[in-house]
Amino acid sequence: MTSANLDAVLAQVDAGLDGSLERLKALLRIKSISTDPAFAQECQRAADWIVGELNGLGFDAAARPTPGHPVVVAHGPDVAGPHVLFYAHYDVQPVDPLNLWHTDPFEPVLKDDAQGRKIIVARGASDDKGQMMTFIEACRAWQAVTGSLPVKVSLMLEGEEESGGKNLPPFMEANKAELAAADIALVCDTDMWDRQTPSITTMLRGLVADEVEITCANKDLHSGMFGNAARNPNQVLAEIIASLRAPDGSVTLPGFYDDVAEISPELKAQWEGLGFDEKAFLGEAGLSLKAGEANRSVLEMLWSRPTCEINGMIGGYTGDGFKTVIPAKASAKISFRLVSGMDPAKIRAAFRRHVEERIPADCSVKFTPHGGSPAITVPADGKYLQQALTALSGEWNKPAVITGSGGSIPVAGDFKKILGLDTLLIGFAHVDDAIHSPNEKYDLESFHRGIRAWVRVLAGFAAGK
Amino acid sequence: MTSANLDAVLAQVDAGLDGSLERLKALLRIKSISTDPAFAQECQRAADWIVGELNGLGFDAAARPTPGHPVVVAHGPDVAGPHVLFYAHYDVQPVDPLNLWHTDPFEPVLKDDAQGRKIIVARGASDDKGQMMTFIEACRAWQAVTGSLPVKVSLMLEGEEESGGKNLPPFMEANKAELAAADIALVCDTDMWDRQTPSITTMLRGLVADEVEITCANKDLHSGMFGNAARNPNQVLAEIIASLRAPDGSVTLPGFYDDVAEISPELKAQWEGLGFDEKAFLGEAGLSLKAGEANRSVLEMLWSRPTCEINGMIGGYTGDGFKTVIPAKASAKISFRLVSGMDPAKIRAAFRRHVEERIPADCSVKFTPHGGSPAITVPADGKYLQQALTALSGEWNKPAVITGSGGSIPVAGDFKKILGLDTLLIGFAHVDDAIHSPNEKYDLESFHRGIRAWVRVLAGFAAGK
Repeated sequence: MTSANLDAVLAQVDAGLDGSLERLKALLRIKSISTDPAFAQECQRAADWIVGELNGLGFDAAARPTPGHPVVVAHGPDVAGPHVLFYAHYDVQPVDPLNLWHTDPFEPVLKDDAQGRKIIVARGASDDKGQMMTFIEACRAWQAVTGSLPVKVSLMLEGEEESGGKNLPPFMEANKAELAAADIALVCDTDMWDRQTPSITTMLRGLVADEVEITCANKDLHSGMFGNAARNPNQVLAEIIASLRAPDGSVTLPGFYDDVAEISPELKAQWEGLGFDEKAFLGEAGLSLKAGEANRSVLEMLWSRPTCEINGMIGGYTGDGFKTVIPAKASAKISFRLVSGMDPAKIRAAFRRHVEERIPADCSVKFTPHGGSPAITVPADGKYLQQALTALSGEWNKPAVITGSGGSIPVAGDFKKILGLDTLLIGFAHVDDAIHSPNEKYDLESFHRGIRAWVRVLAGFAAGK
Repeated sequence: MTSANLDAVLAQVDAGLDGSLERLKALLRIKSISTDPAFAQECQRAADWIVGELNGLGFDAAARPTPGHPVVVAHGPDVAGPHVLFYAHYDVQPVDPLNLWHTDPFEPVLKDDAQGRKIIVARGASDDKGQMMTFIEACRAWQAVTGSLPVKVSLMLEGEEESGGKNLPPFMEANKAELAAADIALVCDTDMWDRQTPSITTMLRGLVADEVEITCANKDLHSGMFGNAARNPNQVLAEIIASLRAPDGSVTLPGFYDDVAEISPELKAQWEGLGFDEKAFLGEAGLSLKAGEANRSVLEMLWSRPTCEINGMIGGYTGDGFKTVIPAKASAKISFRLVSGMDPAKIRAAFRRHVEERIPADCSVKFTPHGGSPAITVPADGKYLQQALTALSGEWNKPAVITGSGGSIPVAGDFKKILGLDTLLIGFAHVDDAIHSPNEKYDLESFHRGIRAWVRVLAGFAAGK
């Protein structure tokens, strides 16, 4: 492969953009809402449509059944060199509240936004059909110009990412030998750092989610008849929650930070260079004071520090008015975000021990686990990461940055755990894309440059630089 | 009035018991469920039925309209000496779940219970039609024997006690001059201490109820994207709740105990003599350890110590499964039970100050008051109390006891606040009467001796001893 080839493929992307857009629109018209059983046929139709496209590009593609919606698996022509496994999802979120959409969510519209930027408006335009199609259209351009692909490409496209995704890990287990043949996983479901700066996410926090239910009395009690003598589980729960944080904002579980390493000075310097605006970040949420650990920057806390959050709590009477009850039970949903090195099982055990030690002897506690996954870190000196960064920098003519993410993308953990693959998270979405919300959009520039970026990434992998 | 009179009236009660029972049954057949608009006519019918009975006994009685169900007000013949105002309520709780009733809730049945005691089974048998009728039948016996009553008697019978009772205080305000002419209020809506021991409740705790809503961010946030940097109102609320109790179980609000007096050594000795079984009391609720203040007995905590209870709390996602959200808001319903001397307004202010001091500067708090009433204490050396104790002791041939109650009976507060009257709470119900539950019953002995007890109480008031 020559750089003449690369230029030709990029030119092909530009020339074929209208066709790429038409195909994206065709996919967006399919109502593949995975969480609603009424749209199961539409999910199948989306999978079949993609299979048709991929087979047309020389892939060996099929919509493989699962207990839920199908997983599309496709393998491109055998090519020497690295083998990539691309992941995206073809299902979308529901469209409620429908009355807040300005146009039909399943009739994509190309229009100018308030800043004069071209955008494509539809459910799934950004999350994740638009992002998925950047990769497929990049493959199409390579095929059109060279009759093949620069590297061996496989795809695994999920239909249940928006509805729990519980069938994917068993599917990966069942097809482990086939899927683990790849060298690196690519996921296109993330944002750029900003409109001018491409980025690759290399640190994803892990998650331990647990539900705690505390039972004191054997029935709800009258707070007049029992108040001050009978144990109130709301009070017990509140005291436990309060005990999870020290006055300096750190999490108090014994050993919580034992396996947490400080980030490297190089990464720290790079993050400081990002010019992250803490005030603006918090301000967008209506806040002005950072919470959490004292003496840690917001970015550091979000990307490289573990946390404990009370995602939900309930106990007693919570309807209108007032009821003087001492409830029998109170419960909370509590999650821990983990960073590299932390063991989810160890954290869950430390948490449960901490709670159990604080349950009065005549009360009881029940735990319900809600999943756990370790943090993911892609080695900063990995060759695929470096090659992808170079490719992205070339497209935007600006150094691509390495970012962390406070969130957890379970599929990245599964790539590592089940298939032994590192994952590069490369995406072209923007924070204002309104994913999961009415009037979801994708910038036409995200779509166009996203295709071009994948063309370059594949070229970079092929060239080994 | 002579003691020969008293004996004759008691004999009349015994002789007329069958007729008294028939009248109670007639009232129990009226479906006066106040909370359900479908039964509004039945409530009116119950009021009218009572008015008919009272007018037949020489009272000047009427069912007076309110914005809800009527209040029955009746005045007996003018008699020199003390003037009593009797309160009870003619409305009843709904009967759901109907399938758990062994007989029709509105077709009263006289039967033997498992211990061979005669009971009357019907909705309202105990709460409060049976108790109400003890007083009316006592008046009937006096009328039958003496052609009058031993003291001036007025009655105020409510039809909305089981549905909030919000129309009664304005009614009392509007008819203040008429009702405040009485010297003492009598309420028949409480239990005996046990089957052998009559009791009068002289201490009722007051109540301050407040709702707290804490707002941090301007919208729900993703706990991955914001966790550890954005303030979590669940955490803020839990820390505030935890801060309300000291390790020794006392309430931490500044000044909370300033106006709380220790009970007199005499009362303390009497309570200790009651043989209250803490273990059995807690055990019935499935508990074995007392909560609350260290070094205080359960009875002391329930009757003579203030408390703070978290009646409800909610924040974030509380449905099935898990959602990694940092909610914008969290709220709690918190109440304080007050004892004599404590000012509800002062406690509410201290509570709000305590909360406000713990709200981070970029978060806010909103309070919604849900009522406040001071504690009620009837002076232990009051003459009506002493006369009533003597009367009850005579009927049961065992010293009547003075008890407190952890609960709040708002009408007693209103008698004091609006009419300036102390209240004697005298009732003949038992804890196993299943009030508000299926198969509600009243012991025939409660009904019979209750009538006889009121005959004696009125005689005692008339005699001034």
